[in-house]
Amino acid sequence: MALRGTLGVFALVLGLILPASVLALWPIPTGLSTGTTPLTLAPYFSFDVAIPDAPADLIEAVAQAHYYLETDKLGRLVVGRGVNDTAALKGAKSLSSLKLILVEGAKVQSISTESVKPIGTRSEEYTLTIPEDGSCATLTANSTLGLYRGLTTFGQLWYYYGGVTYTLIAPIDITDVPAYPFRGFALDTSRNFFPVADLTRTLDAMSWVKINTFHWHITDSQSFPLMVADYPELAINGAYSSEETYSESDVQYLVQYAAARGIDVLLEIDTPGHTAIIGTTYPNYVACFDASPWASYANEPPAGQLRFALPEVMNFTASLLSSIAKTLPSYYFSTGGDELNTNCYANDLPTQQQLNATGMTLNDALSSFTQTTHAALMAQGKTPVVWEEMVLNWNVTLSNETIVMVWISSEDAAAVAEKGFRIIQAPSNYFYLDCGGGGWLGDNPAGNSWCDPFKTWSESYTFDPLANLTETQYELVLGGEQLLWAEQSGPQNLDPIVWPRAASSAEIFWSAKQPTGAALNVTEALPRLHDVRYRMVQRGLNPIPLQPQWCALRPNACDLYA
Amino acid sequence: MALRGTLGVFALVLGLILPASVLALWPIPTGLSTGTTPLTLAPYFSFDVAIPDAPADLIEAVAQAHYYLETDKLGRLVVGRGVNDTAALKGAKSLSSLKLILVEGAKVQSISTESVKPIGTRSEEYTLTIPEDGSCATLTANSTLGLYRGLTTFGQLWYYYGGVTYTLIAPIDITDVPAYPFRGFALDTSRNFFPVADLTRTLDAMSWVKINTFHWHITDSQSFPLMVADYPELAINGAYSSEETYSESDVQYLVQYAAARGIDVLLEIDTPGHTAIIGTTYPNYVACFDASPWASYANEPPAGQLRFALPEVMNFTASLLSSIAKTLPSYYFSTGGDELNTNCYANDLPTQQQLNATGMTLNDALSSFTQTTHAALMAQGKTPVVWEEMVLNWNVTLSNETIVMVWISSEDAAAVAEKGFRIIQAPSNYFYLDCGGGGWLGDNPAGNSWCDPFKTWSESYTFDPLANLTETQYELVLGGEQLLWAEQSGPQNLDPIVWPRAASSAEIFWSAKQPTGAALNVTEALPRLHDVRYRMVQRGLNPIPLQPQWCALRPNACDLYA
Repeated sequence: MALRGTLGVFALVLGLILPASVLALWPIPTGLSTGTTPLTLAPYFSFDVAIPDAPADLIEAVAQAHYYLETDKLGRLVVGRGVNDTAALKGAKSLSSLKLILVEGAKVQSISTESVKPIGTRSEEYTLTIPEDGSCATLTANSTLGLYRGLTTFGQLWYYYGGVTYTLIAPIDITDVPAYPFRGFALDTSRNFFPVADLTRTLDAMSWVKINTFHWHITDSQSFPLMVADYPELAINGAYSSEETYSESDVQYLVQYAAARGIDVLLEIDTPGHTAIIGTTYPNYVACFDASPWASYANEPPAGQLRFALPEVMNFTASLLSSIAKTLPSYYFSTGGDELNTNCYANDLPTQQQLNATGMTLNDALSSFTQTTHAALMAQGKTPVVWEEMVLNWNVTLSNETIVMVWISSEDAAAVAEKGFRIIQAPSNYFYLDCGGGGWLGDNPAGNSWCDPFKTWSESYTFDPLANLTETQYELVLGGEQLLWAEQSGPQNLDPIVWPRAASSAEIFWSAKQPTGAALNVTEALPRLHDVRYRMVQRGLNPIPLQPQWCALRPNACDLYA
Repeated sequence: MALRGTLGVFALVLGLILPASVLALWPIPTGLSTGTTPLTLAPYFSFDVAIPDAPADLIEAVAQAHYYLETDKLGRLVVGRGVNDTAALKGAKSLSSLKLILVEGAKVQSISTESVKPIGTRSEEYTLTIPEDGSCATLTANSTLGLYRGLTTFGQLWYYYGGVTYTLIAPIDITDVPAYPFRGFALDTSRNFFPVADLTRTLDAMSWVKINTFHWHITDSQSFPLMVADYPELAINGAYSSEETYSESDVQYLVQYAAARGIDVLLEIDTPGHTAIIGTTYPNYVACFDASPWASYANEPPAGQLRFALPEVMNFTASLLSSIAKTLPSYYFSTGGDELNTNCYANDLPTQQQLNATGMTLNDALSSFTQTTHAALMAQGKTPVVWEEMVLNWNVTLSNETIVMVWISSEDAAAVAEKGFRIIQAPSNYFYLDCGGGGWLGDNPAGNSWCDPFKTWSESYTFDPLANLTETQYELVLGGEQLLWAEQSGPQNLDPIVWPRAASSAEIFWSAKQPTGAALNVTEALPRLHDVRYRMVQRGLNPIPLQPQWCALRPNACDLYA
């Protein structure tokens, strides 16, 4: 990519300690140079989109960026919230425009088109230059997606006090490029349902921290909210109610909403486990359907898994996945594959009869099932994504292109890499946002969360994407994501349980290190994350407070070792 | 009280297992008899307030109850949410009115007046009779406060499906009286600020489960949001901002809002610890003010405690507490008294000089301080409330009337009872709603919540108010409360971190046991708590889901031992 080379000269960083008023940037740009000159945003500030035939979604993104500039009104997180900046701003120059430029020769495509390109072919990098004298600022990128990322950064530069929108750190030169191509957030919409408005609000927040993948665990054993044109009964019988469904147009709307914000939607239909609810429509396809005691047949109620050994179930599943995948622009599709309960199959007569008749082992049958379903997806140009058990617990033939999500433990990445697969880091011991909420099973007051304790933003932030890997394996790590499993979540607590914590991985996988080259550091990061959180509040989200406000207003005063 | 005797005859309970459709009642009435006849609420249903010169707040409460009846529209928590009830409702009788009656000779006073009477003199009991034939239902009580409690129960009886509001369990006879006079919820509004609208919403929710005390921990070391007419500088200098304050009229509004909902406001000005922020106005009154490292001088940042040994500080504090207390109708006022850091005073020159000059020990000085501040409150007719350290860690002379809050551990109640003080059960190991949220101090990614793990509703629900006490000590237990300390809370997560969990103690201290006489039981309670939670959603609150909806729709199917 030419841009990186051209812009590298701007990647200067002044000293080892970032000035206090850069705090609002998140993820921290990979190249950052700032000054100490106050600069205000002119009341008549405008964006100058210097791109012939600019795509509609870029125009909309610019309008959105303008709206945030006018409405964020974020006071600086210091005692007095900016009252002491007023003197410094007297006589400050004003910035009246930001010019958006695509590098010469770049093909003009919509953000939505760029966002769903194959991993490795998207260009998210950009450069942003804001002179201190009020002359035109410029945002340059190889693609509209890069411009979108730069607009997001531009929006984080400004504070507000007493009618004035300003920065104290002009001139600003940023050249920024993500360290990893996959930066995700995963949501389970089966255990409890989330209306479309909750998902669009979440997609907005994801875009603010440059997360680029929405991993949508849309179905599970508890409910099947997805309306599939070829299999409508699955939602009719399997959704919690007719209101608690995602129609085809809902999905198309969300996929488009995401893409316009630089986000690819990785849909997951978890199979062959986590499928009990399919039994309400196809009782013959599901083993140990709602069997009792559920704990003998599943990790959580209700029990029920696809009888993957049966040819009709294999064909049904391949057809179902194809029917869904064909409606989606993403190159990726997850078939799940976690937590298969073997006892369920050991006690399932149809499965045992089929295995006996064919002389196959359960593992053979699973391999056959997986090959068939994956082949159907690959025929549509999709790359399959699976959970780690598919390569670590089972001997299943998979395409080398398959992407593997590590979730049980961060320790497992090395074993997956050993097998040569590309990895998405989603380890429960760092990235599961639901941990620590206590046990939710009934009749068990002493029950705790299985993945106790709660993963604080800072614990998550210490995750090392390359731990235990050899240097040659590094390139297998595509990135990572934080995840919310929704047994104890719904629209009521979505914002506070996710935000701002999910920003931790967003920075790990975009920035990887500080602009100085130093490792990411929780002490440096906390004041910036407060800023992220307070800006989210200004934008109408409900992120949890990370500390007493007394601490938020006094960077590092509440450090344990302060 | 005559009512209890008169109504005792209705206290019949049918069998040991409550019918599934009684689920929505919370706290479970102490006397409950139900049938199996469907009964609908007539579209023209009305309340008949058969009370001459009914107080305005009773009229408003009736209007609110009517509003909930019309707008709750809570579907029954079964698969299909009531679709299968339609047949049973064909030809069902309709209830057209509920008559509200005060027992003969009862003095007609407002709910607000009744709510703030001294503990032990309030009458919350009521009887509610709903015939199966559609003839007039009656709600009878000794007081408007009792009628208010009955209205709350009446509102929990109804489900909705397809345009019909109904119950399946007529006739219904309830006679209900709280087991304990104090049932509270405590909120800290200092670590992070909660606007008035968040508090009124919380008071509404408290009233739905018959919580009768709002323990308002309004100030702490981090901020002083309370505007005190005689000491305005405390909030001017100590609030996070001028917007993040409670004006005198805010407080009066909230106290009145609470009282009209059967809730007394127990205000706490925590002293002499937890007062650092006072040092921004009175630097000479505060020892180790914002001293570093804070961990040497306080349990959390910032350090700073009143120099209680100094006469001017003692007088200031007595005057401050009086200035606040005189504006409040409650008979109770908390002076706090927890977590005094002795190292702070050991290193404080003014304190040491004063102790040397007077020959007093630190304990002597604390006793003197406490006697002075408490005397000032008692002169205004207030009963002081303190945290347990005041009687367990210090040898402080206290009035026998003093009420002691047990918080460090449920194990400590016995020691407090041993000293003969009345007790409010607020043990962190059962009732602290903030536990389990992970460490919040900076620079400590491995930090956990000090009171890990998260206290689930069911863990809280197993609390025994009388554990380790002798029978003669039982009467010392006034009740208890769940508490939210707000280091990691704000308006953004208030609802989901509090609700429906805070309903656990509401039932423990109202019902104490099941109507059958059996002990409270998490397995019996869970389906009812789901109903509480789903009704809260209908009323616009954001309570956390306790389980996947699959479980909520299938009582006990997700029990561990199902």
